[in-house]
Amino acid sequence: MAERADDLHRNGYKLIQDTESFCFGCDAVLLTGFAKIKKGENVLDLGCGTGVIPVLLSAKSNGSRFTGIEIQENLADLAQRNVSLNNLSERIKIINADINEIKNIIGAGSFDAVTANPPYIKNRAGIKNISDSKTIARHEIKIDLRGIISAAAWALRFGGRLYMIHRPERLVEIIKTLSEHKLEMKALRFVHSFADKKPSMALIEAAYGGKTRLGVMPPLIIYKEPGVYSDEVTEIYYGGHQ
Amino acid sequence: MAERADDLHRNGYKLIQDTESFCFGCDAVLLTGFAKIKKGENVLDLGCGTGVIPVLLSAKSNGSRFTGIEIQENLADLAQRNVSLNNLSERIKIINADINEIKNIIGAGSFDAVTANPPYIKNRAGIKNISDSKTIARHEIKIDLRGIISAAAWALRFGGRLYMIHRPERLVEIIKTLSEHKLEMKALRFVHSFADKKPSMALIEAAYGGKTRLGVMPPLIIYKEPGVYSDEVTEIYYGGHQ
Repeated sequence: MAERADDLHRNGYKLIQDTESFCFGCDAVLLTGFAKIKKGENVLDLGCGTGVIPVLLSAKSNGSRFTGIEIQENLADLAQRNVSLNNLSERIKIINADINEIKNIIGAGSFDAVTANPPYIKNRAGIKNISDSKTIARHEIKIDLRGIISAAAWALRFGGRLYMIHRPERLVEIIKTLSEHKLEMKALRFVHSFADKKPSMALIEAAYGGKTRLGVMPPLIIYKEPGVYSDEVTEIYYGGHQ
Repeated sequence: MAERADDLHRNGYKLIQDTESFCFGCDAVLLTGFAKIKKGENVLDLGCGTGVIPVLLSAKSNGSRFTGIEIQENLADLAQRNVSLNNLSERIKIINADINEIKNIIGAGSFDAVTANPPYIKNRAGIKNISDSKTIARHEIKIDLRGIISAAAWALRFGGRLYMIHRPERLVEIIKTLSEHKLEMKALRFVHSFADKKPSMALIEAAYGGKTRLGVMPPLIIYKEPGVYSDEVTEIYYGGHQ
């Protein structure tokens, strides 16, 4: 397995990634810029992959403890090595398990916040290699939207928040599925590559047991010109502590 | 009642408005830029006020017939005079009636498209004058969101479209109420005063009997600098036929 260690631009943290697998991406970083983790909070990351979200959030926030669940053994192993590499074993715990089995792993209502950068693409016939690591990270093969939301609803305390990044075209399904699980969308921010383009991603905050009053945020624009990040994205990548 | 006649910048059409009442606004104009009315279509406007939406859409589109329903007698009368002023009596019909009584007025499934710029604000105790014309146009006194959506679902044929402008903070409630009435949101466009501000309004298209796959559009920015409309808004106000 080919690997490389990337600089996370946070506390000197580095992240080993399998270059042939699904790598440290823009989406995970944007989610760590969107999630508001308060001092002392207990945070769960559903489908943690290489561990990028817990590692970054442990640098960016004063959250107390972070738990990552990852079904793919090679990725869970990599996440554990990333935790060790950055001396974060006291704050981050990686569990190699199936999110669908969360009720056997995690106590109900035991987390203040849940993060998720789940597979975006509905599973369809015609995928060539469903055991491919990238395919599992991108397609709803091992877990689907309903599974992620159901797991978040189980793990969150009353008033706890889910922070998720997903595709805009699935927003109606997301809102309805959240609602069926007593999660109400509280904040929505679309991510646009350029200011005049349709959004490529949606950043979503939902509260467990919350009421329906949504705050839609200004668009998050990635590039101010081709190849040049906007000031806000530069701040998310390289900026200071929350 | 103080009145003025405004130029609509379309086919030389003018609009008389009661200057003390709820006037020809940006929201109605943006909705006419968003609604895609095809040749020969039969269009219903729910809560037509001064008639601005049917008058503008009759200029902008090749829709065949337009019907406006307005509960306030003085506004329905004004809308009728605006239709006559612009020689549109053969294309536009104004009905002075309560939208809640739509089943007694309009045949089920008799429209290809419905437009609505409804009251945005939830009715609350503490409104001083609930018979005030502006208050009725802005607050959910005579009709609420559920009433508007229920009326649209009644009036639309299978596959027909609702075009509505509403407040972003009510988006979750809008999506759920649409869904309960077999209307599925197909397009969403947020309206931002400036590119870096949160949206002030949401333009929504929903299809009766449609499936859930949403197209989120680029943000619609009103001003490119303070006091100067963006090119797109200038085009909506002054541009050509659809």
